[in-house]
Amino acid sequence: MTDPASTVDSSPAPTAPTGPRPKVTNRGRTAFAVASSNSDSTEVPEFEPFIAPGPRGFPPMTEFLDILEVDMVSKFEEINKQEHRTEFYDSNFLIVRRGQEFQVKITFNRPYKPKDKFALEFVIGTNPDYNKGTYIPIFPNKDRKSRWPGRITNTSDSVLTIGITPLANCIVGKYHMYVAVMTPFGIRRTKKESTRDLYILFNPWSPADDVFLDDEPERQECVINETGIIYHGAYDDVAERHWNYGQFNYGVLDACLYIMDRSEMPITNRGDPIKVTRKASAMLNSRDDDGVLVGNWSGDYTYGVAPTSWTGSTEILLTYASSKTPVGYAQCWVYAAVFNTFLRCLGIPSRVVTNYYSAHDNDGNLKTDIILHENGKIDRTRTRDSIWNYHCWNECFMTRPDLPAGFGGWQVVDATPQETSDAKGLYRCGPASVLAIKHGELCYPFDAGFVFAEVNSDVVFYSRGKDGAMQPVRVNQTHVGRMVLTKAAGDTTRRDITSQYKFPEGTSEERTVLEKAEGFGCHREKSRPLEADVDLVLPTLEVAIGDDFELSLGFKNRSDQQRVVEAYISGNVVYYTGVSSAEFMLREPTVTLKPNESVNELVVVESKKYMKHLVEQASLHFIVTGKVKETGQILTAMKVVRLHNPKLSVKVSGANRVSEEMMVMVEFINPFSFALAEVYIRMEGAGVMMPKFKYYSLIPKGSSLIWTEFFVPKRAGTTRVFATLDCPKLRQVQGEASLTIEP
Amino acid sequence: MTDPASTVDSSPAPTAPTGPRPKVTNRGRTAFAVASSNSDSTEVPEFEPFIAPGPRGFPPMTEFLDILEVDMVSKFEEINKQEHRTEFYDSNFLIVRRGQEFQVKITFNRPYKPKDKFALEFVIGTNPDYNKGTYIPIFPNKDRKSRWPGRITNTSDSVLTIGITPLANCIVGKYHMYVAVMTPFGIRRTKKESTRDLYILFNPWSPADDVFLDDEPERQECVINETGIIYHGAYDDVAERHWNYGQFNYGVLDACLYIMDRSEMPITNRGDPIKVTRKASAMLNSRDDDGVLVGNWSGDYTYGVAPTSWTGSTEILLTYASSKTPVGYAQCWVYAAVFNTFLRCLGIPSRVVTNYYSAHDNDGNLKTDIILHENGKIDRTRTRDSIWNYHCWNECFMTRPDLPAGFGGWQVVDATPQETSDAKGLYRCGPASVLAIKHGELCYPFDAGFVFAEVNSDVVFYSRGKDGAMQPVRVNQTHVGRMVLTKAAGDTTRRDITSQYKFPEGTSEERTVLEKAEGFGCHREKSRPLEADVDLVLPTLEVAIGDDFELSLGFKNRSDQQRVVEAYISGNVVYYTGVSSAEFMLREPTVTLKPNESVNELVVVESKKYMKHLVEQASLHFIVTGKVKETGQILTAMKVVRLHNPKLSVKVSGANRVSEEMMVMVEFINPFSFALAEVYIRMEGAGVMMPKFKYYSLIPKGSSLIWTEFFVPKRAGTTRVFATLDCPKLRQVQGEASLTIEP
Repeated sequence: MTDPASTVDSSPAPTAPTGPRPKVTNRGRTAFAVASSNSDSTEVPEFEPFIAPGPRGFPPMTEFLDILEVDMVSKFEEINKQEHRTEFYDSNFLIVRRGQEFQVKITFNRPYKPKDKFALEFVIGTNPDYNKGTYIPIFPNKDRKSRWPGRITNTSDSVLTIGITPLANCIVGKYHMYVAVMTPFGIRRTKKESTRDLYILFNPWSPADDVFLDDEPERQECVINETGIIYHGAYDDVAERHWNYGQFNYGVLDACLYIMDRSEMPITNRGDPIKVTRKASAMLNSRDDDGVLVGNWSGDYTYGVAPTSWTGSTEILLTYASSKTPVGYAQCWVYAAVFNTFLRCLGIPSRVVTNYYSAHDNDGNLKTDIILHENGKIDRTRTRDSIWNYHCWNECFMTRPDLPAGFGGWQVVDATPQETSDAKGLYRCGPASVLAIKHGELCYPFDAGFVFAEVNSDVVFYSRGKDGAMQPVRVNQTHVGRMVLTKAAGDTTRRDITSQYKFPEGTSEERTVLEKAEGFGCHREKSRPLEADVDLVLPTLEVAIGDDFELSLGFKNRSDQQRVVEAYISGNVVYYTGVSSAEFMLREPTVTLKPNESVNELVVVESKKYMKHLVEQASLHFIVTGKVKETGQILTAMKVVRLHNPKLSVKVSGANRVSEEMMVMVEFINPFSFALAEVYIRMEGAGVMMPKFKYYSLIPKGSSLIWTEFFVPKRAGTTRVFATLDCPKLRQVQGEASLTIEP
Repeated sequence: MTDPASTVDSSPAPTAPTGPRPKVTNRGRTAFAVASSNSDSTEVPEFEPFIAPGPRGFPPMTEFLDILEVDMVSKFEEINKQEHRTEFYDSNFLIVRRGQEFQVKITFNRPYKPKDKFALEFVIGTNPDYNKGTYIPIFPNKDRKSRWPGRITNTSDSVLTIGITPLANCIVGKYHMYVAVMTPFGIRRTKKESTRDLYILFNPWSPADDVFLDDEPERQECVINETGIIYHGAYDDVAERHWNYGQFNYGVLDACLYIMDRSEMPITNRGDPIKVTRKASAMLNSRDDDGVLVGNWSGDYTYGVAPTSWTGSTEILLTYASSKTPVGYAQCWVYAAVFNTFLRCLGIPSRVVTNYYSAHDNDGNLKTDIILHENGKIDRTRTRDSIWNYHCWNECFMTRPDLPAGFGGWQVVDATPQETSDAKGLYRCGPASVLAIKHGELCYPFDAGFVFAEVNSDVVFYSRGKDGAMQPVRVNQTHVGRMVLTKAAGDTTRRDITSQYKFPEGTSEERTVLEKAEGFGCHREKSRPLEADVDLVLPTLEVAIGDDFELSLGFKNRSDQQRVVEAYISGNVVYYTGVSSAEFMLREPTVTLKPNESVNELVVVESKKYMKHLVEQASLHFIVTGKVKETGQILTAMKVVRLHNPKLSVKVSGANRVSEEMMVMVEFINPFSFALAEVYIRMEGAGVMMPKFKYYSLIPKGSSLIWTEFFVPKRAGTTRVFATLDCPKLRQVQGEASLTIEP
């Protein structure tokens, strides 16, 4: 036996096949590519023969119906839009909500006879398919059952009015409608024309819809309201940021559908609010998938817009949809605000919430570690975790058929990318049931443990010995998740919803929940170091930016003996992420307390010390640590002091009537002893003005500016105009004016 | 009041900021970047002063200990490796398992005194941190508590033996060890040297480890066994594919750590088997993240290796780690096999399982739709779903502290990217508890519903009317998930584990589970069309490739009346994914059955019809549908016929002793009437031979080849040598030989 084949190589250590890779197709893998674009579509043929044509083609089909006109908008615009609560959308197309009937009018070439057979066909995406719910034929004749109920609601000569009720779980997006007439020779259809496109949205008013919300004021707020307030600052000195969600603005709905197309989310998943919100939480940030917003916390916003400068979502969404590249820049409230627009625009009830002292980037651990030197002073090179002054996320409302009963309702979704944790995996978060979080039921998807840690972590202070050994010396169980706020429905006040996330501190329910959470693998600090018998309290302060002020440290000796406290007062300029930019002050007083004595230690904070270090949102963070000489016990206290910015003055004047021109005047006086350079002012108003901006290269110290714009209100109602001023030396200066437009 | 500022622009429709984007840093966002690379590390200083040095530096520190030698391997190699069951790893480093003591020997410059203070420091990744578990100091003196217990096990002159027990939940990966001596002036350390690197792995032998598996034969199979069998073919004609997992081969462990580094998985997550397996299921495929394997089902394997050609995982993993680009090509069993190597290499018990008739790419729906024309013939242009002939995934063993009690044990993980479903989201799958799948508890993470559908979907046949209306005409509840197989522990037989995934068909438990699954949002077909009173059965066949054969269709009339069946017999060449490549045969017999009569209809299948269409794994798929004239009832039957390939002959000869040269001879005769071109033969053997290959440009018809190689067995034991032959015209020809090496 011989070896007739020519051999070439026998390699003991095979090397990598190099060179170009072939474009991998779906051949052999799937029968058809998955439809994942709402903007692509397959055209359905105008004539679909049942039989082969004769030698002279098909006979003339004059005896069968012919369609002269299909009217989806003009005649029924007001009726459909009002009944479906879509009248605010600035769009040329029919927009309806699923699970609720809408009307179209069809004009035939002759009066309709009951034996005529025709169908309306709704089609979405490529390769429309009956079983996937992407091709829905409707037979308005009574004898045929359609997946979406259809009925003739009026017959008038050759004009038929047809009522169609899309299923309450149908795909959400842009459909095309065909009218098809059955003949014995084949199906004759209308040509594809964009006038027969329509949008079908989620419907919080339909009890059969997964996003049904049985509370009209909440629906008005969480679906219809375009103007929002997002809270920031500190829990004891809350600041407001006004935002124009703009979900009804021209082009915004298309931008939201583009986001889903861009994510390659299969069309068939787009009727499920769980999948839509989870996918969107990934897609709102640019990590991994070239999503909408580029995060940037660095202070350098070259080639983009500073996160503090935006006044609303419209500009961001339209820019993303037209440029098809991520938009710079976002921090947490920008992610939450644009996500809110996306959700409200598609009809999913949603709101932005703010959690004060949010444990972050720690992968669902229930511990935030602060390391102290042996002498009690904070060890900044070894303290890696941060507690955000605040963090914003979204809640959206839906049932959770994927979970056991009881976990529907508000669900946390968060589009801000988390830095620690699952790296590439957790640049999305939620939906996580708020009720599951409150009750510590952390075994249910998605990411409930992560949100639980954001509101429930302990702050653990460790003392680090010279040899590297660590010893926990204090555990603060009440600092994190101090308060959760959202805007109240129907007015501009705030609503404290902390109790929806957790039971009151110190109750037995709270302890039970924390134990349950540990049972699901959330690690807590177990040691309970002895509490010091000296209390330390920092005051609540309201300080204007540029002011000197006094910080009064309250020491209280609860023991019957003298106590000497060696304290370290560290004043830091911090980002809102809790990350320290610069330590501008360090004092090391020794405080002697007689038995049961209270002493206030006054510390003067001079503006010249902190002004030159200021970043971003102008917050100062004071950490006071101390060691009791007699006992070695450690005291700690932390406080964020928000520096109040000057305000922009926004004044509106005019007739306050639809279609009559009005004027808005934005005014600012530079109150500082230094000039402001590279200043952007942005302004917009829900339903009255699209986003505008103006650039000032320099505003000298003490000087003022006035910017006047004219606008024409398009619709009646109460709304607001928001403006921001932003420059590298001074961020998040804001102003707003309320106005009520008469019809 | 004037406007002193120079204004530049006031734009009513703002445009996108264009131009380059700045590199976004973690500044302002996090205090430190997250450590996510095991190969990067921070060097710990050789001297860490406690106090400032005097004008002439520090005094000579002769009175303190100095370290002369640290011995981690040579002296204790056998003891440590055998006790930790790591003796098979081909590595120069110490490899141990967590939760179990190992020994190192330190030689000081003088005898050790109890007052000497020194520590062993274990460090992994950058920015080592005590609280993150990436910096672990160990104080062997009895008076100090260490996170990892450490003790002096022997003192002999100036040589100390120290036993260290890494925590059973510590990070898995490559650590560096320092020895540090405390002096009053500072800490004096050993220099960083790679001889003091060690690997710590998961430990299925430690009851405290999350991957503890209390079954020695299973541990030997699922952690230690390098040679595997992966089942394919059809449930009634099972085929075997031999595979060399090669988890102990030189470089494989480093390649596995590289995979985690490449995924940017934070170091701190690498002790958690849930996170490690979930991340790896994403990282084994190249979608999204440039992971290990490029999927390709197309038949065109230019620039890569055909999936059917691989003999083991070693070549793939070493190529990925060295080229740092994804390796082509994989289909499901390649993903599962390489994932298995990854898991066993890190010490997580795992096995490859095969599910026959696997519902796929359907996003957790419990329905696979097949569309028929009104006359009962299959409508290929509208049938989009496919049922894979088989699908392979992995099971790994671990507790699930994130879930309620009872869902630990075997967990499904699947690295094959799913095409439908969550698009970019579901290119990973699991871990999903097998017990939760069996009991329909689909609300628990991760992806249990998806796997449930793979074994439990119904096949629904629809009849499509001319006007597009669909009507379900038959529901087959037993086709999908027909059998689940894995290799039995300890031998080469197969083990049917179907009952671990589902209750027997038709039992009340099965119905309860399906109802529960529906409660969690899995949609099933509700209608139950009348069963036909004519049965149709296809035979089980064993057919060699190239043979003509007969297909005998058994019709049985169960009624007391005559039945006439108009049948359509469609013969297709299919990929193993169930996707049809070509219909090579269509017969339309009419079968007349007397009351209660059984009739066999014989159909001859000629090889010349199917041979020219063959793809890949040479399977024929027969779908028979029929319509009963009298009742309109629909009959269906489906059958996969696997065409048996010729075998490779593999013969081993020699002394069968460690370190003595042996010979292996691979022989193949081309039995076909055509030549085979571009032929690769690959061969490897666990513990005896690294992968080798040989290329033959042509093997003429009827001619034979012989390839002879020599090898030197490195260790004793029973093992196998596997070989494959692969060319575009003939794929997955295999052969293997077993051999037992004496010490």
